[in-house]
Amino acid sequence: MVDIQLTTGRALVSYGPYKDGGWKLRNVALRPIREHELLVEVIASGVCQTDLHFAGLESGHGVHYPRVMGHEGAGYVRQVGPGVTSARVGDPVLMSFSSCQTCRCCRRGHPAHCHNFDPINFESTATDRVFWEEGATTPQTSEPDIFGRFFGQSSFASWTIVQESAVINVAGMVKKKEELQLLAPLGCGIQTGAGAVLNAAGARCDDTVAVLGLGGVGLSAVMGARIAGCQTIIGIARNEARLKLALELGATHVVRIDPDAELSLVTQAVRALTGGLGVDITLETTGVPDLVAEAVRMTANKGKIVQLGAAPETATLNIPIHEFMVAGKVFMGVVEGDVVHREFVPKMIEWVKSGLLPLHKIVGFYPAENFEEAVRNMKSGRTIKPILLW
Amino acid sequence: MVDIQLTTGRALVSYGPYKDGGWKLRNVALRPIREHELLVEVIASGVCQTDLHFAGLESGHGVHYPRVMGHEGAGYVRQVGPGVTSARVGDPVLMSFSSCQTCRCCRRGHPAHCHNFDPINFESTATDRVFWEEGATTPQTSEPDIFGRFFGQSSFASWTIVQESAVINVAGMVKKKEELQLLAPLGCGIQTGAGAVLNAAGARCDDTVAVLGLGGVGLSAVMGARIAGCQTIIGIARNEARLKLALELGATHVVRIDPDAELSLVTQAVRALTGGLGVDITLETTGVPDLVAEAVRMTANKGKIVQLGAAPETATLNIPIHEFMVAGKVFMGVVEGDVVHREFVPKMIEWVKSGLLPLHKIVGFYPAENFEEAVRNMKSGRTIKPILLW
Repeated sequence: MVDIQLTTGRALVSYGPYKDGGWKLRNVALRPIREHELLVEVIASGVCQTDLHFAGLESGHGVHYPRVMGHEGAGYVRQVGPGVTSARVGDPVLMSFSSCQTCRCCRRGHPAHCHNFDPINFESTATDRVFWEEGATTPQTSEPDIFGRFFGQSSFASWTIVQESAVINVAGMVKKKEELQLLAPLGCGIQTGAGAVLNAAGARCDDTVAVLGLGGVGLSAVMGARIAGCQTIIGIARNEARLKLALELGATHVVRIDPDAELSLVTQAVRALTGGLGVDITLETTGVPDLVAEAVRMTANKGKIVQLGAAPETATLNIPIHEFMVAGKVFMGVVEGDVVHREFVPKMIEWVKSGLLPLHKIVGFYPAENFEEAVRNMKSGRTIKPILLW
Repeated sequence: MVDIQLTTGRALVSYGPYKDGGWKLRNVALRPIREHELLVEVIASGVCQTDLHFAGLESGHGVHYPRVMGHEGAGYVRQVGPGVTSARVGDPVLMSFSSCQTCRCCRRGHPAHCHNFDPINFESTATDRVFWEEGATTPQTSEPDIFGRFFGQSSFASWTIVQESAVINVAGMVKKKEELQLLAPLGCGIQTGAGAVLNAAGARCDDTVAVLGLGGVGLSAVMGARIAGCQTIIGIARNEARLKLALELGATHVVRIDPDAELSLVTQAVRALTGGLGVDITLETTGVPDLVAEAVRMTANKGKIVQLGAAPETATLNIPIHEFMVAGKVFMGVVEGDVVHREFVPKMIEWVKSGLLPLHKIVGFYPAENFEEAVRNMKSGRTIKPILLW
């Protein structure tokens, strides 16, 4: 066997569902890159609810442990595999979702609704093993034992292997390392919220907007609505601190969800703020079925309800067909803002630079070894969007 | 009292729900016109399912008898009331729905979803009495006793009073009386189908389309999809003759609904015709709740389900939230094709003239006094779109 020099680094490894012990920071070695892959030195990776969701899944249906999560990575290209044309060694890159680029949705400019999205981004097959754990196995005599390629990147690691379709080359746009660290979450959470309101819903300045749920996605939707120039932006959540932050980020009004009261009061409040009509665009980021139903009710005639929040697999929404039709409402499902990330992320970078997208107000930086604190603070709401620094 | 000359004519009068005896052709006199009204000599009026639906309602909630239905009128202006600027005496006009032109939806270019659509088009108040029945009452000493203004027009009458917002002036576009008769149904049934596919769904040539239900609206959607240049247009219905007609009008494939078989077979057939993906645009014209559910299932990722068919008031659609979101589907309610009729009807007239909208293949002409035969033939499917001639 040929003795090849393997890249080594650290990675947050999930050995099973989060409840069984969570993630461990381990020293790892990486297999060599292949066609259409890049080796990236990761400097920062945002933590997203989707990481926590997938880290909670039992094995099976394409979910295999041990694996490395992380899908809001930022770093520098250190090697490119055969066929890579999107970036060169040394380029700073952001990482987003991966897509097949050949199915009908990809060809029509909707890669976030790629027919192969799940297998490409979430599931693992034998060929998706990327890392060896130091001491556990012998690279020279075995296949890697830890799965990578989560969202095409598995960026909870100081070095990782990235699928080319997940890469956004930001050379020429981003100069400093600190800047690149701040921009890490653009590729998922921020584009999901801002993209939904600006791209999928096509918000205009004369639209009234409500945002249900004010986590990273919801607050990004608020910022997106402000970028669109919307004059009425209503932030809706339970947590007082998030309502306050929403006002700071562009919400013109906030409505607090009282967990002890009827949810219909939320709709009443939104209607009261819009002359009884309801809003033109409702961004539903919670995935809570009862709130999805209220989202439909608080939306005006000809208004759009944009579903961004992941509901439980079996949850359903009951639409009164005739009433919905007469009102001319639109219920739309949107993943990742339905953006083409290589087009939308550069726009967001410009907005961050010009102050229109004040990303720094929602992020918190943590050394990677403090990942448990980062997750704890995200769950408690103390940090909206934690970024792990490698 | 001043002795004024009243216009007289014939009208199809509903004296109560259709089941209690149906419509009667009566000699009537008309009250003088008011501000923003036109007196029109009707030469033709299409019969639409909505006429039959409203003719079946019990009194109450704004429904008062006796009343005159009809909302696909064509005729010539004979008098204009104060403030009328859209047409002059002698102009040929088509009649469509009425709208308040002041609410937020009207101001934003969506008059078919006008906040006052129901009171303006369907309900009657004391001031909406338009006709006296000859012999029953005395115009000189009493208020009119028959309600008009159905859809702002009540055009099942040889003369009627029309609200200005319902009028489309076609002077310069239509020369001959026979041509104007043919065009009568453009203002509702045809624009509902063609407008939904071309305007609301924005069909493009690379979209695949399915049309559920092949009555006047469904067949108009088929013709609209052909105008958009769609290469796959799938007509779906129970009736063999309608499937055959759909093929003649532009459908590239048809799927027969077997009333004795599982409805899911329809979805399977549509998927088989589209490489397993489903269609990009599904037009649901039946309002049958189980078919609405199939419409969602037969639609591809990023596809639109356009609901045009009136479902029973209490019927609901169960949407699996997560699956719908991941697929990026869109469920939209659309009335009257969401068109501005004064913009869309002239386009349709051009398409009729150029042969792109072969309206003549779906209409059947009946002298007004044969209205019972017309309704019977519409119900049996023998005539897709009956037009009463006055």
